[in-house]
Amino acid sequence: MNKLLIVGTVAFDAIETPFGKTDKILGGAGTYIGLSAAFFNLQSAIVSVVGDDFPQEYLDLLTDRDIDISGLEVVNGGKTFFWSGRYHNDLNSRDTLDTQLNVLADFQPKVPENYKNADVVMLGNLHPLVQSSVLDQLESKPKLVVLDTMNFWMDCALPELLDVIKRVDVITINDEEARQLSGEYSLVKAAAKIHAMGPEFVVIKKGEHGALLFHDNQVFFAPALPLEEVFDPTGAGDTFAGGFAGFIAQSENVSFENMKNAIIYGSNLASFCVEKFGTERMLSLDKQEVVSRLKQFKSLTQFDIEL
Amino acid sequence: MNKLLIVGTVAFDAIETPFGKTDKILGGAGTYIGLSAAFFNLQSAIVSVVGDDFPQEYLDLLTDRDIDISGLEVVNGGKTFFWSGRYHNDLNSRDTLDTQLNVLADFQPKVPENYKNADVVMLGNLHPLVQSSVLDQLESKPKLVVLDTMNFWMDCALPELLDVIKRVDVITINDEEARQLSGEYSLVKAAAKIHAMGPEFVVIKKGEHGALLFHDNQVFFAPALPLEEVFDPTGAGDTFAGGFAGFIAQSENVSFENMKNAIIYGSNLASFCVEKFGTERMLSLDKQEVVSRLKQFKSLTQFDIEL
Repeated sequence: MNKLLIVGTVAFDAIETPFGKTDKILGGAGTYIGLSAAFFNLQSAIVSVVGDDFPQEYLDLLTDRDIDISGLEVVNGGKTFFWSGRYHNDLNSRDTLDTQLNVLADFQPKVPENYKNADVVMLGNLHPLVQSSVLDQLESKPKLVVLDTMNFWMDCALPELLDVIKRVDVITINDEEARQLSGEYSLVKAAAKIHAMGPEFVVIKKGEHGALLFHDNQVFFAPALPLEEVFDPTGAGDTFAGGFAGFIAQSENVSFENMKNAIIYGSNLASFCVEKFGTERMLSLDKQEVVSRLKQFKSLTQFDIEL
Repeated sequence: MNKLLIVGTVAFDAIETPFGKTDKILGGAGTYIGLSAAFFNLQSAIVSVVGDDFPQEYLDLLTDRDIDISGLEVVNGGKTFFWSGRYHNDLNSRDTLDTQLNVLADFQPKVPENYKNADVVMLGNLHPLVQSSVLDQLESKPKLVVLDTMNFWMDCALPELLDVIKRVDVITINDEEARQLSGEYSLVKAAAKIHAMGPEFVVIKKGEHGALLFHDNQVFFAPALPLEEVFDPTGAGDTFAGGFAGFIAQSENVSFENMKNAIIYGSNLASFCVEKFGTERMLSLDKQEVVSRLKQFKSLTQFDIEL
């Protein structure tokens, strides 16, 4: 089995949507990526940090899914990273209500020995120096390195972000962030500029409007599944990235054609994530539901024009 | 050859976008629908009205494409419908600067005798009483009636609009209008409510974010082609509708599966329309370019996951 190395936050979230609010629940980019990638046939490990306030039952949710947490540091006397946000009525935008870095502030990632030869590396949203440090610790070149980031790092750590972007094969980024990073409004032009920064593949996430995959002059589009109700978008982008990286790790094929499939798998898994608060839906999801919804993605997008 | 009957405005437009502005140029829903449908193997006629200020060269552009204009009334001493608008920087929204109904105010549509047995009827955006009057004049039931409308008629002629919606097979409408008409934010729920108003097929146009086709519990999605630059969105929705109706008229197949193809053809033609001001790109477009871009739509959307 191939090895997928995941770096990203493991955290507490408190979420408000028009449908309700939660107390502190399990969250974090690394968590969502790990839960999503667990639907594939691979070995995975999460590199992250939590405080000793982090419940054993949350750790068990990860190990129950055969996710290696030997690289998940628990800081004695430390508090786990906490994020709180409120979504607007259209669920397309949100306000951050509170961010407490806590143990994340001094986080020095440590890649487990047996993952220094990982086949695929998924660098979830974190400080770009943390992402770079993980790459520095690898002992062999992975088949694929995927990076996710956000506008926060463009605002406050742009040189470091540009350094790590140079080192990755795939970047996943949302549409507004692609515009900010490139200075281009057109997503086609933005992708070309970001491509020139290093990554061979540029994935632009558009939330409910789907995702675009750019590679040289080729482009592929995966829609989001039209849903009766989106309940909570938290973690959808990370779940998408986890599905993308997980499928690539399982299939060992980094061609553009296979990345199309990876984007569909990512969109498919993300479509479940938004159905309930936080990680709830991903925790109840089974593989048969995933396959059944993939059929919906086929009938949603495939047509039969002879040319 | 099958007959396509088109009803819609033939008009003057004056357009401002971030890229420039035009004087009075050829416009109108009927014009865009006709130019788009002219790419298919069919007979078509436009029912509309203009004033005697409407230049012969514009009429020639229609007849050059074998569009029957015997139902295009020219009112002596009358002035042609005029619309002027300014697009915002993102090109996703616009302000109407001026609307002069002129000869449209008293328009009584007259369907040519030899189109009273049309195979497909495309009711372009116009007063719903005009759309109903066209249906009243038909002597046989068409294979398909498609209706396009806009929020303006929801605001000022809702009962008449609901009456004509009851009588059509397909409605094409944009996302905000679908929400207004149904009172539902979720497009899946909105489509279900509009379906219950009459039309078997509901097409929701999302501009640069593509189009959705709903039928019973099935849904199909066609993306807009990612373009380096959108120059002028005017007429894109009408060009989409013309491509949709034109393909159906040519293929004589009103199944859901074939409507998927029709949606792709409509999206394909619309992707050309937005490349230049007004009708300019549609007038220079040739069939080989259309086929070539259909191949792009295939590689943009088709994937190969075995299930």
